[in-house]
Amino acid sequence: MTDHVVSVGVDLLAQAVADQAAPVSQVDWRPPLAGTEDDLATVALDPLRGAANADALERVLGVQAVLVDVLPAHEAVGLERGEFLHAGPPIAWDRASGPLRGALMGGAVLEGLVDTPEEAAELFEGGLHVRLEPCHHRRSVGPMAGVVTPSMWMFVLEDPATGARTHCTLNEGLGKVLRYGAYSPEVLTRLRWMGEVLGPLLQQVVRATVAQEAPVDVTAILGQMLQMGDEAHNRNRAGTLMLLRDLAPAMVSSGTDPAQVAEALRFIGGNDHFFLNLAMPACKLALDAGRDVPGSTMVVAMSRNGTDFGIQVSGTGDEWFTGPAQVADGLYLGDYGPDDANPDIGDSAITETAGLGGFAMATAPAIVRFVGGSVPDALATTRRMQEIALGENPRWSIPILEFAGVPTGIDVTRVCRTGILPQINTGMAGRRAGVGQVGAGLVNPPEEIFPKALTRLAALTRERAAATTPS
Amino acid sequence: MTDHVVSVGVDLLAQAVADQAAPVSQVDWRPPLAGTEDDLATVALDPLRGAANADALERVLGVQAVLVDVLPAHEAVGLERGEFLHAGPPIAWDRASGPLRGALMGGAVLEGLVDTPEEAAELFEGGLHVRLEPCHHRRSVGPMAGVVTPSMWMFVLEDPATGARTHCTLNEGLGKVLRYGAYSPEVLTRLRWMGEVLGPLLQQVVRATVAQEAPVDVTAILGQMLQMGDEAHNRNRAGTLMLLRDLAPAMVSSGTDPAQVAEALRFIGGNDHFFLNLAMPACKLALDAGRDVPGSTMVVAMSRNGTDFGIQVSGTGDEWFTGPAQVADGLYLGDYGPDDANPDIGDSAITETAGLGGFAMATAPAIVRFVGGSVPDALATTRRMQEIALGENPRWSIPILEFAGVPTGIDVTRVCRTGILPQINTGMAGRRAGVGQVGAGLVNPPEEIFPKALTRLAALTRERAAATTPS
Repeated sequence: MTDHVVSVGVDLLAQAVADQAAPVSQVDWRPPLAGTEDDLATVALDPLRGAANADALERVLGVQAVLVDVLPAHEAVGLERGEFLHAGPPIAWDRASGPLRGALMGGAVLEGLVDTPEEAAELFEGGLHVRLEPCHHRRSVGPMAGVVTPSMWMFVLEDPATGARTHCTLNEGLGKVLRYGAYSPEVLTRLRWMGEVLGPLLQQVVRATVAQEAPVDVTAILGQMLQMGDEAHNRNRAGTLMLLRDLAPAMVSSGTDPAQVAEALRFIGGNDHFFLNLAMPACKLALDAGRDVPGSTMVVAMSRNGTDFGIQVSGTGDEWFTGPAQVADGLYLGDYGPDDANPDIGDSAITETAGLGGFAMATAPAIVRFVGGSVPDALATTRRMQEIALGENPRWSIPILEFAGVPTGIDVTRVCRTGILPQINTGMAGRRAGVGQVGAGLVNPPEEIFPKALTRLAALTRERAAATTPS
Repeated sequence: MTDHVVSVGVDLLAQAVADQAAPVSQVDWRPPLAGTEDDLATVALDPLRGAANADALERVLGVQAVLVDVLPAHEAVGLERGEFLHAGPPIAWDRASGPLRGALMGGAVLEGLVDTPEEAAELFEGGLHVRLEPCHHRRSVGPMAGVVTPSMWMFVLEDPATGARTHCTLNEGLGKVLRYGAYSPEVLTRLRWMGEVLGPLLQQVVRATVAQEAPVDVTAILGQMLQMGDEAHNRNRAGTLMLLRDLAPAMVSSGTDPAQVAEALRFIGGNDHFFLNLAMPACKLALDAGRDVPGSTMVVAMSRNGTDFGIQVSGTGDEWFTGPAQVADGLYLGDYGPDDANPDIGDSAITETAGLGGFAMATAPAIVRFVGGSVPDALATTRRMQEIALGENPRWSIPILEFAGVPTGIDVTRVCRTGILPQINTGMAGRRAGVGQVGAGLVNPPEEIFPKALTRLAALTRERAAATTPS
């Protein structure tokens, strides 16, 4: 808890001190989020909190994510015909945003449940033969709409120390792609090629790397990426190249038709975002290890379905704390503008939850040309995120900040106490189903979800205190 | 010319002003190099100078370097049996340093001129059947010892606008390699594999990219590298990965035995410095376009043979201005220390001459773990190099400096006027023939070569003035 309690913003305070001609260093200090004072005081006194957060953070930092397999979703996470995974907290069709609806419609056609996207809309409105479930509930994450259907191939990541696994689909590229809500014939043709050629080839190649005891070490590649201008959310260029480097020899030796191998190499090499779908499950694998530590105030998931933004917290189990997803502020493709953009969507904020993405922007100044903002902003953002993080990740260091580790472990109490919200950088989907990507930008979670989580943490603290008080 | 003429260093001056309690911003200003005042005054009044430097710089910045072929040196630059190219200004065996001797000895065995490195030493001491020549005199550059023999394969780079070409051998990797002066059996075995497998495969693949009108654009890759933490002298990690990305599909489709293709992919992917041998000739191709502009004070080559450090200047033709090569200050491999290091060697300072390497260190802060120094030093170095450069290269920008172009076009007059010497980062060869690499570090040219070049520029200025003065 802070020693200062004032009811005005820092600008007024600084001005007041300056008016008295006293020296003053202006800092980015604001009062705690309104109405959180009592809960903050309760949680601050929780005897479990310090050790619980240290334990949760240590568990997260100890995870190594290795690429061990590539499997269709029905094998990887047991997805059955008619089941659809999606990004974000739970939601039904009636509240689903345009891009999520578009991706679901395209997914239904891909699975042969219907013949046209239009019929698919009727299918989902009826609701009898389909079932929606968050990716996060199946040890998975999905970028943007995050729609996963049984036939889609998924990367399988594993922590060798525990055998824990997470999953993510293969990245389609940018523009008119399913995860941005597009479902035109070109989108489905690409997905079918990924299902028939790319997925099986990658399975064979990844299994070869495992058999050679040289599996792709995603956690280590992420460490290298941060030295190469990637923040691993909206820049995954170096990561994609390192993945190509690690898989290309086995692809050549796979016995697959060289023309198909060359096509796969061109597809991956032509999509700087390909590695995102490995970065995300690596972050989830790490954060899942920090779940369910009683008393821990550490955020273990931030996620959006295009309508709601939700977080989960270590000390509060599987409960989602949600509020309205915001529209990002950023740069638009072509003639698109703010009116075309859907509110924030995707499980990709798992990267920020693990200290990458917006939290690591200092190491990726070139990203301001993609998501907007300025280079000084990018540096300042990482420093600001240090204020709400429990610690740093020594495996993921930022050279320009003299090799400081990325700020890791968002602390609900620090967010409430400082009013500093996590900074996310993100792609922007068109708000109408079928449009696809319209831009990329910067966005925050809705402020209210952190006090909601804090209230629950405080309630649990009080329950524990009552249970241990001698009667 | 500066308005300030003082005879004391900046520290004393700043202290003196501070003692008088006047506000002072300390700047890195020093008096001109001793004895250069008259020549500086002469060259400053040369009516050609301003336009000549603008012209020379514009020519350099206009060059695009494209990879058009891979050829054995006897085809690429007409090298005959018994001819050896080497890095740096001209030198004979009797003054050659250990690593240059070691590389020449290994090269003689590789060519079958002798059976053992020991016999090779006698061959070079005799001198009858061998001929040494700088790489630079054959439109080529070579890293470290820079030894090229007729059977070694070379990259061929071309500027499509002019058809001008430059060349460089294929990179062997780090450690025990010929260019660092090692000549053990493993070194020669690797060179033979490069000659028999890698060179012919790359020739086939590069010719395929040219036939498909999609040749590797080395200049564009260099632009991307600067956004990915490479400064293109001692960090070429992203560049190597992008080269792999661009060549891998054609390698797969080449019809070559997949086992050999996989081996080549592993060799290139396992050597983060592979792209250096494309960065260097790209820089030379650009700088060669800036040669021979009368009145231009721009440096067009900085190069070292392990004994002498030499520069060539646009306005002074092919003349070398030389002084003793310095020993770098840096980090050592294993148990090696300063006593094991040879003085500065290699044509690779062509990267600094073109604005990369030490001049671009701000964009590659991770390099301080390889060459020494600190992250703030890396940033300060690029800013300091701006003081002696004629301009910036907009194609090669540094994100962390808000996308400023790399400082390009070292101006002899600015070096003499400010005393700021070009900053080079470099590998360090063992001083005894046969040792190989011992470390990497930071080094400067010997100060005296810039006043030497200035004196010649001043003499030419006076000649021109005399020729145009009405008699």
